[in-house]
This record gives sequence, C-alpha cells and structure tokens, in this order.
Amino acid sequence: MKTSILAVGTELLFGQTVNTNATFLSDKLNHMGFDVMYHFVVGDNPLRLKEKLSEAFLDTDLVILTGGLGPTQDDLTKEMVSELMGRDLYLDEKVMEQLMGFFEKRGRKMAENNVKQAFLPEGCTPFYNASGTAPGFALSVDGKTAICLPGPPRELKWLWDNGVRAYLEQFMDKKMFYRVIRTIGIGESDLETLLMPVIDGQTDPTVATYAKEGECTLRVASQRDTIEEAEAAVDEMIERIDALAGDFIYSYDDEELKEVVVRILKEKGLKITSAESCTGGLFPAAITDVAGASDVLSSAYITYSNESKIKEVNVPAELIDEYGVVSPQVAEAMARGALQRAGADIAVSVTGYAGPEADPGHKAGEAYIGYAMGDQTGHYAVNTSRNERKWNRNYILLRMLRAVYLLIR
Amino acid sequence: MKTSILAVGTELLFGQTVNTNATFLSDKLNHMGFDVMYHFVVGDNPLRLKEKLSEAFLDTDLVILTGGLGPTQDDLTKEMVSELMGRDLYLDEKVMEQLMGFFEKRGRKMAENNVKQAFLPEGCTPFYNASGTAPGFALSVDGKTAICLPGPPRELKWLWDNGVRAYLEQFMDKKMFYRVIRTIGIGESDLETLLMPVIDGQTDPTVATYAKEGECTLRVASQRDTIEEAEAAVDEMIERIDALAGDFIYSYDDEELKEVVVRILKEKGLKITSAESCTGGLFPAAITDVAGASDVLSSAYITYSNESKIKEVNVPAELIDEYGVVSPQVAEAMARGALQRAGADIAVSVTGYAGPEADPGHKAGEAYIGYAMGDQTGHYAVNTSRNERKWNRNYILLRMLRAVYLLIR
Repeated sequence: MKTSILAVGTELLFGQTVNTNATFLSDKLNHMGFDVMYHFVVGDNPLRLKEKLSEAFLDTDLVILTGGLGPTQDDLTKEMVSELMGRDLYLDEKVMEQLMGFFEKRGRKMAENNVKQAFLPEGCTPFYNASGTAPGFALSVDGKTAICLPGPPRELKWLWDNGVRAYLEQFMDKKMFYRVIRTIGIGESDLETLLMPVIDGQTDPTVATYAKEGECTLRVASQRDTIEEAEAAVDEMIERIDALAGDFIYSYDDEELKEVVVRILKEKGLKITSAESCTGGLFPAAITDVAGASDVLSSAYITYSNESKIKEVNVPAELIDEYGVVSPQVAEAMARGALQRAGADIAVSVTGYAGPEADPGHKAGEAYIGYAMGDQTGHYAVNTSRNERKWNRNYILLRMLRAVYLLIR
Repeated sequence: MKTSILAVGTELLFGQTVNTNATFLSDKLNHMGFDVMYHFVVGDNPLRLKEKLSEAFLDTDLVILTGGLGPTQDDLTKEMVSELMGRDLYLDEKVMEQLMGFFEKRGRKMAENNVKQAFLPEGCTPFYNASGTAPGFALSVDGKTAICLPGPPRELKWLWDNGVRAYLEQFMDKKMFYRVIRTIGIGESDLETLLMPVIDGQTDPTVATYAKEGECTLRVASQRDTIEEAEAAVDEMIERIDALAGDFIYSYDDEELKEVVVRILKEKGLKITSAESCTGGLFPAAITDVAGASDVLSSAYITYSNESKIKEVNVPAELIDEYGVVSPQVAEAMARGALQRAGADIAVSVTGYAGPEADPGHKAGEAYIGYAMGDQTGHYAVNTSRNERKWNRNYILLRMLRAVYLLIR
C-alpha cells in the first residue's frame, strides 16, 4: 500500500527537533510491506497542513500524520484532518476519563487547554494513549486513510505497539522480508564494486548499500506472496553476498557492534573493563546500553588526566615522560593496568586527542587503542585527521568495539 | 525567502537513516532569516524526485536538495535537477583533479563510478568539496534556485561553511534574530499556561514552546529590518519571560545542561568526579563531550557490580546488605567514596534500575542520585515508572547534571 508520512511542527522547520518519528514509522511500515513513498514536514499552519495532506492523498492511500495533537493553541492536526475528510469532532468520554486520571495520578491540576485533547473525529478508530495525554486515531473515508499520532517519540512508539500496528494489518497485501547486514572496514563504493556481480540489474531481492559514519550497511529485501518465500529469497542472496564480502560483515541481523560484542562476551563468559582518556566514558556507556551488561562489565575507569592514568591504572610515570601520554606504550599500559585492577578477562583502553585542539606535534583525531587479554597485549593507531570532537569520539569508540570484537570473535 | 528542503534517499524512506541534514539546514537558514516552509523526502527515484522538485518550486523559490550525489548507480539528483532546469552536464576539471588527489592521498584506487561525480550542470556555481568526493552546486534559472549538497552530514556541513552560506547571503531580505531558552523542571503546557500573558496574540517577537525528553525549551524570534532591532525586541521579550518563569531557566543561549555545568565548574575552578551504576559512563561521557573538560574532570568510576562499589569507591558492604544496593544510603556512600578517591571538589553518583527489568520489589526507572561537595552529602530519588532502558538512562543523566547544576549555580 502506498504510504506518506506527514509530520506537523514548526520546531521541525526551525531545525530545533529531528524528525525521528518518520524514521521509526518508515522502518516499521517497510517491515510490514507498506511502500513508504514520501515524507513531508509542514509547520503548525492549518492551510499548508491541509494542502500537503490532500497532496499526499493524490498518490498515496495511507497518510500517517505525526504531531500537532498537543494541548497548545497551535496544535491543529486533528481539526484540519476532520475538516478535510468531512467529519465533526465529538468529546470522547474514555479519553476524558484517562486525562483526568493522568493528572490525578501525578497530583497535577489539569490545565483547561488539555480538554481539547479529548475531542476526536466522528467515526474514527481511537488509539487510546496510556503513555501521555494525546490520543491517536485512524480515520478512513472513501478509500483514503489518515492516522494521526502524537509527536513525542515515546508516545508515538507506545501507540504503534498498542493499536496502530494491529489496525494496519488489514491493509497488508504482499509480504516483505528484509535483513540488514552490517560491515566495518570497507567504504561504500568499494563495497558496491565488490558486490556488483550480485547487485547489478537485481530486481528482487533488492540490495541497497548505505554508509554510516565509520561503517557501511547492506539492506537485502524481498517482497513475495508469503513471508517464507521472501525470507528464502533474502537468505539465498545473503549467501552470495557472504561469499564476496564475508570478511567485512559483523552482523547479519542489523545488530549494532556493541550488541554483538556483549553477546559474544556473554556466550564466552568473559568480563571486560576499560580505561579511557579522550572518549571519557563512551565505551562502558555503550556496553551498558545493552540490557544484561552486568554479566560482562563490573568496573571501568575514566582516566582523563596524566595523574589519573598513573593513580588509577598504574601507568608508570616514566612511560608518559618518555613516550608522551598519547602513545602506543601508554595505551597498552592503561589496558594492562585496568585488566589487573578490575580483575577482568579483557581490557580495552584509549589515549588520544578528541579535538578540536591537540598538543603541539600532534593532530586532533590521533589516538591509540590498547588491549589486553590474558598475557596478550597490543594496540591500534587511529588517525581520523579531523578536528571534529564528536565525530572523533564516536569513531574511536567504534574502533575500540572493533578491537574487542577481533579479539573475541 | 521561501525555502524547501528536499532530501533524496531510499534509506530515509526505509527508516535506516534519520534526516538530520534537514534539521541542520533548517536551523542555519532560519538564523539567516530564510522562511523554511517544507521538508520533503523522496527515494532514489528519478521521476518522483523531479515531481517533488517542481512541486517545491511552485510555492518556494529556493530548494535545497540533499543526497543522491554519490558515485553509485542510484545517485541521480544532479541529473534530474539539470534536466528539470534545462542544463547539460560538463566535466569539471577542478573536481576531477580533486577526485584523483583524494584517492591518491588515501592510497586507494579510484573506482570508475567515481568519475560520475566530476560532472556538473552548465552555468552552476560549484561548491568544491575538500571533505569528500561529491561536489555541491547552486543552479539559478528564472528566479528559481536549486542547491544540491551531498548526503553525508559531515560533508554537507563542511560545504555549508565553505561556500553555501556565503552564496545565500545575496538572498537575505529581513534580518532574523532568535534565542533559544532552555528550562528544566516544568512541563510544556504548564510552561505555556505560565507564559500565556506574554505569548497570547504575540506576532513579533514570536514565542514557541517545545518539549524535549525531560526538558522544555522556548524559542523567541523576531524579524526586523536590522539585526540590532530584532535582537533588542527578543531581549525585551526575554526579560518579560524571565519575570514569569526565571526559576526554571538554566540557559538563555541554547546551551545544553552539560555545557552550562562545565562552564560553571571552570569559572569556579572546581573538579568533578562520578561513580555510576545504571548510567554506566554517560555522566563523564557528557562532561568530556564538552571541549576543555580536562580542566574539570580527572578521574571517574563505573561501578556496575556490588563488588565494584565496595572495591572502587569504598561503599561499606553492610550498607548494601542493610538497605539494598539501589538505595539513597548507597548512592550517598558512592558519591562520598568517589569524592575522596578522586580528590575532587564535587562528586555525583547513581545507583538504580535502567530497565527493562528490575529486582523483585523494585521498578525499572527507580534510581538514587547521590552527591557530595565539601562535607555536604545528599541524594535525589528518581522514579520514571518506565521500563525503557535508553530513555531511563538519558533521563537519569539529565537529573545527575541537574543535581550538579543546583549545587554549583
């Protein structure tokens, strides 16, 4: 089914918020075999909202609107959709009760403008919202369906899982199956050149490559009459890809590198620790972002200053004097020291310049990643030759995860 | 000038990547007083790309296209723009040189499909790209201007700073000035109710509220003939807002809480440390995300397990036995222990359940934030009553930053 996503909110056009709702919905809709053809964003402007909605209905039959259901004056999505589709609004008792309950539970007085949220278009399918104050709804008129969902991503996701997904199943025709393969260590156009034999002139399954900072991902998708056929076609294609690019692949199921690392550590019953300078906590934050990380991480250290490297993870001061604090020697000593201190099985460390500045004789983005496992110790050198702090920190984190992955895979 | 942003890329419609380019450009364009009216996203589909581009040109005079300039088969933005605007492509010598230099420098062979990137439309203003292989360009025909920029955010930003911004200055008419005020501790509709007297019927400056996870932000904007007039109008309005909601405001310049905290710590010459359980490194990662953090943070500890809390930051084992590891008592002991261990001026700690699971008798999202400064020790209780790990971790981080802010402001 041809689908558009129409986000409503001036804050999006001001560049104050990112349209992650469109991303979330697109992913889910594609999984269900819906064909997402357009994203639109308009401001809190009734006329342009109606204009773009009718425009979207011209060549798509399902339009999912996000935002503009809030209690404030400029929230007008519901009103405009009802108007365009020729429906009046009614006061929904159940929403009203929920609203009153919501504020009672939090011991807050219900602001008058919240009552606005209890009105819904006649004949709609309401999606009652237990995660916030704005209900969502679906309204079908003459073969065109509008689904309105609140803007806050958490509420939108809750409503997707609790009503919207089930509602949409009635529209599913062809079944789509896809897998996202993740690679690291190869650029997009090299990867595409490598895969040209299987990509070229391919109609189904389709193979799309796209680059993320530091890694490159493949999406293999098939649409068939049954999920089983689609899945079989995808897996057959993946075998051919594996034969050509297997060395660069670390996940066949769109797992993030941190998830893969935690999974393998768990499987092998290994405990990890870290000592970080320039990434300042990103490594354990990534590991503990995965549920159940307590099985694999107990202690970790941020050793940002020289003194801290000496005091916390026993880096010999002479080593810093002789080779400088940003050096392979210090990186390895940090890993070794963290391993002993934490009593872990594996330690990874980093010392470097996140940028934008670096010490004389060094460049921002220069870093050394150390690792220690058993009596094995080693390091990797990183040189992003960029002075973008955020980018460097995230890239170095990815390289730390990769260093661990190569040790344990 | 009325402006649209048209992003090209099937990965956006698949929900694999987030359209952060539209956010970046919208923010910059608004700063320059451009009126961003629409965002569009289409896939790598030549016909729909041309359709939406002509559509965008109907009621906007400037369209910025992002993506589809890469070396791969499905990158067709440049070709479609030239076709729609009636221009042929020519091989740009300078781009060709840069391409060859780019691959030489990295010791990589230039793939044949990269040559495609050296072609530009006749009569365009090229934006040469030193941060990647795809050049951008501006093409003006009959009062309509298309600007094409590469999709990778880093390259797009580089081109904005190195060509696009300067090119756009010719179109600036009215001058816009705005400030973003950040608040914490009040919900959106309460804040709007509080500010109703100054918001109601306001045309210029405009005051827009929007909610982010855990905080709420205000955008005060004015468009006048001169920047000075606009700035004066904004600041006059901010005084009136300050009188009504000053208690909740922590930044008048869109500073993030972590930036405010690091700035104040620097100003007061204070060193901070942390001991974290459920956030597992998010706190020092946030602090060290701010350039120059080395002045304020030297050591920090991730103490994820009970043993680690005892070993690393001297939490008495009896305390854990008596009150449980997720308790105010343990949180305060962690902060106290980290303070002494690191020899810092302030310590913040957290022990809690990030979720999705929690121990019997507890709920995911239950956490205790401890703090210690001099001989002052205390704690805050957090109860998100949510089982979303990521959300809980980020919310708890925000509360840790706030705890520090309230200590040092």
